[in-house]
Amino acid sequence: MISFASDYIAGAHPKVLKRLVETNLETLSGYGTDPYCEAAAAKIRKACGCPSAEVFFLTGGTQTNQVVISTMLKDYEGVLSEETGHVSAHEAGAIEFTGHKVLTIPGHDGKIDPEGIKKFADKFYGDDSHEHMVFPGMVYISFPTEYGTIYSKAELEAIYKTAHEYKMTVFIDGARLAYGLESLEADVTMEDIASLSDVFYVGGTKCGALCGEAVVFTKGNMPAHFVPSVKRRGALLAKGRLLGVQFDALFTDGLYSEIGRYAVEKAEELKKIFIEKGYRFFINSPTNQQFVIMNDEKLRELEDKVTCSFWEKYSETETVVRFATSWSTTAEELDYLRGIL
Amino acid sequence: MISFASDYIAGAHPKVLKRLVETNLETLSGYGTDPYCEAAAAKIRKACGCPSAEVFFLTGGTQTNQVVISTMLKDYEGVLSEETGHVSAHEAGAIEFTGHKVLTIPGHDGKIDPEGIKKFADKFYGDDSHEHMVFPGMVYISFPTEYGTIYSKAELEAIYKTAHEYKMTVFIDGARLAYGLESLEADVTMEDIASLSDVFYVGGTKCGALCGEAVVFTKGNMPAHFVPSVKRRGALLAKGRLLGVQFDALFTDGLYSEIGRYAVEKAEELKKIFIEKGYRFFINSPTNQQFVIMNDEKLRELEDKVTCSFWEKYSETETVVRFATSWSTTAEELDYLRGIL
Amino acid sequence: MISFASDYIAGAHPKVLKRLVETNLETLSGYGTDPYCEAAAAKIRKACGCPSAEVFFLTGGTQTNQVVISTMLKDYEGVLSEETGHVSAHEAGAIEFTGHKVLTIPGHDGKIDPEGIKKFADKFYGDDSHEHMVFPGMVYISFPTEYGTIYSKAELEAIYKTAHEYKMTVFIDGARLAYGLESLEADVTMEDIASLSDVFYVGGTKCGALCGEAVVFTKGNMPAHFVPSVKRRGALLAKGRLLGVQFDALFTDGLYSEIGRYAVEKAEELKKIFIEKGYRFFINSPTNQQFVIMNDEKLRELEDKVTCSFWEKYSETETVVRFATSWSTTAEELDYLRGIL
Amino acid sequence: MISFASDYIAGAHPKVLKRLVETNLETLSGYGTDPYCEAAAAKIRKACGCPSAEVFFLTGGTQTNQVVISTMLKDYEGVLSEETGHVSAHEAGAIEFTGHKVLTIPGHDGKIDPEGIKKFADKFYGDDSHEHMVFPGMVYISFPTEYGTIYSKAELEAIYKTAHEYKMTVFIDGARLAYGLESLEADVTMEDIASLSDVFYVGGTKCGALCGEAVVFTKGNMPAHFVPSVKRRGALLAKGRLLGVQFDALFTDGLYSEIGRYAVEKAEELKKIFIEKGYRFFINSPTNQQFVIMNDEKLRELEDKVTCSFWEKYSETETVVRFATSWSTTAEELDYLRGIL
Repeated sequence: MISFASDYIAGAHPKVLKRLVETNLETLSGYGTDPYCEAAAAKIRKACGCPSAEVFFLTGGTQTNQVVISTMLKDYEGVLSEETGHVSAHEAGAIEFTGHKVLTIPGHDGKIDPEGIKKFADKFYGDDSHEHMVFPGMVYISFPTEYGTIYSKAELEAIYKTAHEYKMTVFIDGARLAYGLESLEADVTMEDIASLSDVFYVGGTKCGALCGEAVVFTKGNMPAHFVPSVKRRGALLAKGRLLGVQFDALFTDGLYSEIGRYAVEKAEELKKIFIEKGYRFFINSPTNQQFVIMNDEKLRELEDKVTCSFWEKYSETETVVRFATSWSTTAEELDYLRGIL
Repeated sequence: MISFASDYIAGAHPKVLKRLVETNLETLSGYGTDPYCEAAAAKIRKACGCPSAEVFFLTGGTQTNQVVISTMLKDYEGVLSEETGHVSAHEAGAIEFTGHKVLTIPGHDGKIDPEGIKKFADKFYGDDSHEHMVFPGMVYISFPTEYGTIYSKAELEAIYKTAHEYKMTVFIDGARLAYGLESLEADVTMEDIASLSDVFYVGGTKCGALCGEAVVFTKGNMPAHFVPSVKRRGALLAKGRLLGVQFDALFTDGLYSEIGRYAVEKAEELKKIFIEKGYRFFINSPTNQQFVIMNDEKLRELEDKVTCSFWEKYSETETVVRFATSWSTTAEELDYLRGIL
Repeated sequence: MISFASDYIAGAHPKVLKRLVETNLETLSGYGTDPYCEAAAAKIRKACGCPSAEVFFLTGGTQTNQVVISTMLKDYEGVLSEETGHVSAHEAGAIEFTGHKVLTIPGHDGKIDPEGIKKFADKFYGDDSHEHMVFPGMVYISFPTEYGTIYSKAELEAIYKTAHEYKMTVFIDGARLAYGLESLEADVTMEDIASLSDVFYVGGTKCGALCGEAVVFTKGNMPAHFVPSVKRRGALLAKGRLLGVQFDALFTDGLYSEIGRYAVEKAEELKKIFIEKGYRFFINSPTNQQFVIMNDEKLRELEDKVTCSFWEKYSETETVVRFATSWSTTAEELDYLRGIL
Repeated sequence: MISFASDYIAGAHPKVLKRLVETNLETLSGYGTDPYCEAAAAKIRKACGCPSAEVFFLTGGTQTNQVVISTMLKDYEGVLSEETGHVSAHEAGAIEFTGHKVLTIPGHDGKIDPEGIKKFADKFYGDDSHEHMVFPGMVYISFPTEYGTIYSKAELEAIYKTAHEYKMTVFIDGARLAYGLESLEADVTMEDIASLSDVFYVGGTKCGALCGEAVVFTKGNMPAHFVPSVKRRGALLAKGRLLGVQFDALFTDGLYSEIGRYAVEKAEELKKIFIEKGYRFFINSPTNQQFVIMNDEKLRELEDKVTCSFWEKYSETETVVRFATSWSTTAEELDYLRGIL
């Protein structure tokens, strides 16, 4: 039985785990004030080409979206997201829990475009009715998206420009950032992500860590007194070292990129296998998540041989399923998969 | 430089870490559905003598208090706590963040008593004014308290009985449960904690884990659809294995008790050292936290030799400081401390 | 200058105001405990054919939606609404302010249908992914809708049945209930509204009162301790008499129906005028709101003669505007309107 | 049967009601944009000697406290109040409902002093522990207090100065402002109230209106986009005229002062009656609320002759009860009271 169910089916990348073991008995202060958090932040700042960025470590993705969005929005603002955006569809209402509305606009392949933003935001200029509506205060996008797709640099530039024209900030959810940046189709670097957003996060959980996400405020715009704001959201980890040590490892000797590159490579191999076996894809994804249209009969046949994720029904007799690769995907698993398809 | 600053200055207990390493490459499902979470829950149920208890793993203490209290209270209810209770004083308003008030009553040595509960609750019977007040729906206590003190079994029984007379539930915060149960003065077992509460949590972060707390709903009373309720609070960990594996280790071969016993033993030794050196204690604590009254001059002298926690000013020239022991406290550290006091 | 801008451009219906004047000096207890609130509740219960209904008076429409929805939903639930529903589009995020998500489904003419509900709710049965999504706990509809349209009895029956099959409650927003019930096309009575909902409200503000809405819990299902729940939402009026006296008047001698009937009659006359002048309607509304497509040039010409409400752009050169009638609309105003169109 | 139960037992002052009747059929725009709101705001600005003040009308006291406090506090801040402050004790948790903690400090006679503020706020300077605590961001006081007492000008100056030294704003709850300003002991004017606060409100509900409170932002500091912030709290009244017309009347020809003066005069007469009958007072109140210590037997005897408010038990055989006067108190009622005491 092999699994392509998600990119969080294994523990930590061995190099990350090794550092946790090596530092385990060191006496360190709590709540993110230890030297590993500091070192990790410095390395991330460097990777972003953004020496004045402020970096803060949180534990999980939904938590990070919740903390970032609810501390950056003003009282009367909501966050704009594509309809399938994680904050809109798959966080059990974590943004609304903090009192803020997720405003959705339609997109394509999980992506939004400047025209969509413009069309929505224009409603708030020119008449008074907006006073009974939720102002769009932030544009939320993910890189890669829920469908594994990525934005080009030109697209990110256009979104950033349009958002700022309407006084909105841009937040890039990088839960799977490593896989986006290392996609063969990517023309975007981490420096671009930093420069074309007001805040983004470097995903750890899905990219080699046991847990952890690194929020980067790129414009000297971390909300004042951010620690108590995080604490009151139940999101301040006592042993911040757990996050600091892991991100320090991820940003040492290019490990984060290496993890992304490896998983993308495996995804490309997986893609080839499906193509060679005659399968169709639901969407053309250049990252570690692949969405395959599969006959329901075949799916039942595979059930006790390989685990993947149900995505949605495609037709009466077909289903879209997701296969995800990661640093832990092996050549043997791919061979085995080829054999059973 | 040695440190008694807190019980979370080191990583994980070596036996806990060992299991994380051993299980690291296993393919496991996410969000707490893996077999380690299941095994850990079973072991905790057994330790509680409560076969039908529901166990849920969360990441940190404030998060746990926030999730438990806000999902168990009714809309119009608040939680009753001693004035120095963690939920009232040191969580940056995490309970209020969820819309609920912390109602405080005075106690002694960090503990409340049935008379205090009764006096407060009586206001809600007999006239109508209570409709403009926050109903007390839950009694929150910690075992041990913020001052390291513990309740006797008789005291817990009386609190439980009184709370239920007023239709309140009892929630025991066990962030440092191991140290309370293993205190030389304790006449309470984990079974007692389970039977004399509606919900409690077994602290991991401060008792040997990298992170993690195990919430135990002792009366078949876990709120319906608890997973989405946790998720929307940003508190559902993707790699639930991180919590499951650690608690499985903590509840294998009596490790949790061993950790508690060891730290209490070290605390007793530490206490003796302070006594033999002529120091006074701010409070008589039978657990791993010791509150010492120290001359400010001496404190400054020690500053670069030992780290402890500032608690409060005692007089113009004296300060209360906290020394905490844990599984990582060594005999050498105590010897060194004796030498410099 | 005449105005058809809305149905809240005048004060109270003279008969309502008269009762406020007559009772002004009476000594009455506060917070809804006075005999006028009681009498009004009794009359509303009678009008609903629902002797055990619980009636509670609030001040405004958005407030009422916020209080009802947030006290009736469970922690992990959201409310289902048509995309143009008032709670979704025009309350500045009042539902989200309480932590709950408004889940939207597309409809037609402002109305939803059982198929839409079914399609949405089916996602929550059959697999586990729903644990990361917001459960639909309540169906929100308005009668009439934002577009002035109304549901038939058969439609309401089908919605009620479908909602309950999925364990959802049904909440009918009756901000303009009088105009819906008295529509020439209505086959629904107030008794039907009560029997085909779990909770609804009788709109006062837009139907003859200075302010006030009467919430009716039709199934003995008013949330426990509703008064403090209302109070903590800032929605408990000290001089509850202001609401009680007005609703008592509205439900004396059929005044509420009379107000509805009169406004609908005037709306039909208004409709005829527009038809006779060759205008087209954006939607076919059988109630007091009429949505007319108007040439922008004509609109500018009318600007200082009549006030109406901008609704949306229809084409490059045309705009949809709303004309609303009410108890205060006069024959003279209609004549004047005919003259200037 | 006469009543001194509260200052909201009657409807509106006749002059206020008269204006509602006179303006009832005027066509006016909604949501506070009508000329009466504008005129009332102008008159209040003038009464405050504060031409640039921003005035906003809300419906009730708890609502006003909730809206003002939650829109002015920053995310991580709480509001400081005397333990018996209305926001702390009698609003069913309305402040906590918005996510913010009410921080209490002890006072005397319902009042706080600069030393109390200083002692509390000093905790937030000098060490790091404050990051786990709720920052005090605003000082809330009421004028008069819950016990009818008032601050002197010197006391208000000292509080304002101290609060600002600690970067806190000052909010004065003026639910009964008229009675405070017209107290024989008052050395404070409405101009002083405006100059010694950042925001305050002029109480209408308890001072002659059917409902309504006028919030005054005295330093050009009304939160941006206040209308949608009010709307999402369910607090924006559709027929804003109801508030505008009433406040316009209250601030025409000195009516607001007249109402205060009359009630205080009646309170002084009432005080004399109690003194002449040998009763003791629980507290020395110079405003319209009088707190009398009464024998329980006497209290029972009076039960069907006069209504007053239970305050608290004083001893085994005595109770503190409140007698409140208002614009509607008559000489006959006082005579009758004298006869039965």
